[in-house]
Amino acid sequence: MIDKNDIYVAQGYGQRLGFGRFPALLIIDLTNAFADPALFGGGNIDEAIAHTVPLLAAARLSGVPIMFSTHAYAADGIDHGLMVQKNHNLKRLVAGTDATAIVADLAPRDGELVLSKRHPSAFFGTDLLGWLSARNVDTVLICGCTTSGCIRATAVDALGYGLRPIVIRDCVGDRALQPHLANLFDLEQKYADVVPLRAALDHLAARSK
Amino acid sequence: MIDKNDIYVAQGYGQRLGFGRFPALLIIDLTNAFADPALFGGGNIDEAIAHTVPLLAAARLSGVPIMFSTHAYAADGIDHGLMVQKNHNLKRLVAGTDATAIVADLAPRDGELVLSKRHPSAFFGTDLLGWLSARNVDTVLICGCTTSGCIRATAVDALGYGLRPIVIRDCVGDRALQPHLANLFDLEQKYADVVPLRAALDHLAARSK
Amino acid sequence: MIDKNDIYVAQGYGQRLGFGRFPALLIIDLTNAFADPALFGGGNIDEAIAHTVPLLAAARLSGVPIMFSTHAYAADGIDHGLMVQKNHNLKRLVAGTDATAIVADLAPRDGELVLSKRHPSAFFGTDLLGWLSARNVDTVLICGCTTSGCIRATAVDALGYGLRPIVIRDCVGDRALQPHLANLFDLEQKYADVVPLRAALDHLAARSK
Amino acid sequence: MIDKNDIYVAQGYGQRLGFGRFPALLIIDLTNAFADPALFGGGNIDEAIAHTVPLLAAARLSGVPIMFSTHAYAADGIDHGLMVQKNHNLKRLVAGTDATAIVADLAPRDGELVLSKRHPSAFFGTDLLGWLSARNVDTVLICGCTTSGCIRATAVDALGYGLRPIVIRDCVGDRALQPHLANLFDLEQKYADVVPLRAALDHLAARSK
Repeated sequence: MIDKNDIYVAQGYGQRLGFGRFPALLIIDLTNAFADPALFGGGNIDEAIAHTVPLLAAARLSGVPIMFSTHAYAADGIDHGLMVQKNHNLKRLVAGTDATAIVADLAPRDGELVLSKRHPSAFFGTDLLGWLSARNVDTVLICGCTTSGCIRATAVDALGYGLRPIVIRDCVGDRALQPHLANLFDLEQKYADVVPLRAALDHLAARSK
Repeated sequence: MIDKNDIYVAQGYGQRLGFGRFPALLIIDLTNAFADPALFGGGNIDEAIAHTVPLLAAARLSGVPIMFSTHAYAADGIDHGLMVQKNHNLKRLVAGTDATAIVADLAPRDGELVLSKRHPSAFFGTDLLGWLSARNVDTVLICGCTTSGCIRATAVDALGYGLRPIVIRDCVGDRALQPHLANLFDLEQKYADVVPLRAALDHLAARSK
Repeated sequence: MIDKNDIYVAQGYGQRLGFGRFPALLIIDLTNAFADPALFGGGNIDEAIAHTVPLLAAARLSGVPIMFSTHAYAADGIDHGLMVQKNHNLKRLVAGTDATAIVADLAPRDGELVLSKRHPSAFFGTDLLGWLSARNVDTVLICGCTTSGCIRATAVDALGYGLRPIVIRDCVGDRALQPHLANLFDLEQKYADVVPLRAALDHLAARSK
Repeated sequence: MIDKNDIYVAQGYGQRLGFGRFPALLIIDLTNAFADPALFGGGNIDEAIAHTVPLLAAARLSGVPIMFSTHAYAADGIDHGLMVQKNHNLKRLVAGTDATAIVADLAPRDGELVLSKRHPSAFFGTDLLGWLSARNVDTVLICGCTTSGCIRATAVDALGYGLRPIVIRDCVGDRALQPHLANLFDLEQKYADVVPLRAALDHLAARSK
């Protein structure tokens, strides 16, 4: 649907970053609210969750740092920002409720960071950056949802902070296909490497040996 | 081309922020390099420049703060980040050269901020935020290029920082139409108000009275 | 103890910012742990708490935004950063325990932001900035502890973000007098206005009329 | 002058971070303006400059990334922030003039980053963080001036970003002794390791072998 326009090739876009040496796994917003089409789910998000199961297992085996983000607000709404004005339904994402819990198939374990955020990027208004830096991370494997929202914003910030963003194509999803594909195009051309699950599993397996 | 999918409506996206009380004009990356299809221009960027001429005039008349960004790197490349690895041609954006000068039709005047940046968002790695806060700005009128790059990233950061992003549809452009439209859709649904030039001119004129 | 050295006067330091138009009250780290000399308290922190009681009452009456910060970490320590390596006792600041609760005399009410932070500045790794911007705040009245730690770091960041930092002298405290005085000197000379409680109460009262 | 108060020991402050694996050298604000007592110099800043000469030579030999910051504003003052209101003389720090040039004894070479900043911390409103992250830096050797200003602010931000701040005692200076000592105390207790020049030279020499 989105053509890799000739102009992107001619102007030099779409080159590769490659994996660095110290990856971390960032699982973005795979909470019950984003698995539920009646809230913010739909599209291919269920497939992204299913494909993230083996990715999470491989990351655990290889011992890399693992972070889960959940998009959540205080029950009294005191921390609502402008983003909530673009979609009042975001108010339903109350911290500590079922809606904002990570989906059961990916339940976090002790020693894995669960980060509450209120903006698209997992870096924005959080101390994710310091947490990754303190662990010498130079590469972030990004999965979760939505491709056109929090995945993209997290990848763009990671790039700016000098962390190679690797978006795992099979493990990201969106409520609608067109924004999903359009944003994968932008990410691949300008901000991140977009790779299949297989490539991420191989990379993590090579580290585990 | 990008349908306003039913799911976005059903889930509550696409509501309006509205103008705040104290706007500033952000003119993003309208430099010679982005007006030149042999470098990073093309598509409808020339139209965006042409439509920004009256917008800039109206902003000057109304006395609101005005900022121009230019994407530029040091001549020795010491400040190249990961973004340059996604497109080595970005190395051509050398600070102080013709490529990174603001286009002649929009030449900045004394008292207007010209900000050099090295990342998509004009807020990232700059002190734009403090500059706007010190001027009590609560709304940013965003024009320039590219819609799928620096316009979007700037709008997303503005939203997070509590500044209402208003993207002036006629005054933003991109090297290819599909990413332009896809990103206007994302912006309108989730991060910004997308308004015609007329609405911005009317708003500024009302302030000038 | 710290002389206002002639060189500071000669070089132009110590001028005044003045109050802006839209203040918020930031109450920094007045938690049980910082009221307890066996943990991180001592010195004149108890006096700071006592003097903050009328300041909080005045702020509530005037309707300005009110934020409390608490310095707290996850129970499993996954979010410990380098700061904890400078003082391992910080691990005792576990989120959700009595140690990290705001002291009873200043118990937060609905509609007041309680912000969990893991760094000296209340702005660092949090979205305090966006919260203040969305409320048009241009001035922050700062009280709490410690003067030589989180008060100073919060004031320095506020200044950078274009928010006038007003440190309420009677309402800030530290575990030891020398660092308290030394940092008030630095703040007054370079980063903030340091004013007595009376000035803050008068300013808030004038707004309440 | 500042006693290492018993309470700091009792509460656990003053532990060590240690060197990490990948250091960078940050030379803060050693510009002509800060070498001149008629502008912002004085005190022991000249000694700091003299001691930084061998440190810079060792850093060059070992090949670690080197950054110089200069505190500078645009000639038309459009980028003046609140900090300039605390000291109007800061307006004399005009970018591109002799005042804001790095002192001749430490003249930067190609391949060394010269960063213009407008806030105390070299990280604030700049993209220093991304530059260091892209080079895998986990430790910053900090020298320059002033101890009670930009040295401290840079160290506090580095700590928050997960970069071990190592302040080189002989290579930092201030216009007055008391603030210099008071801030070394705070740094050592809470935010950074404060080490003699000898320790930094040994560390760099070990890397050069």
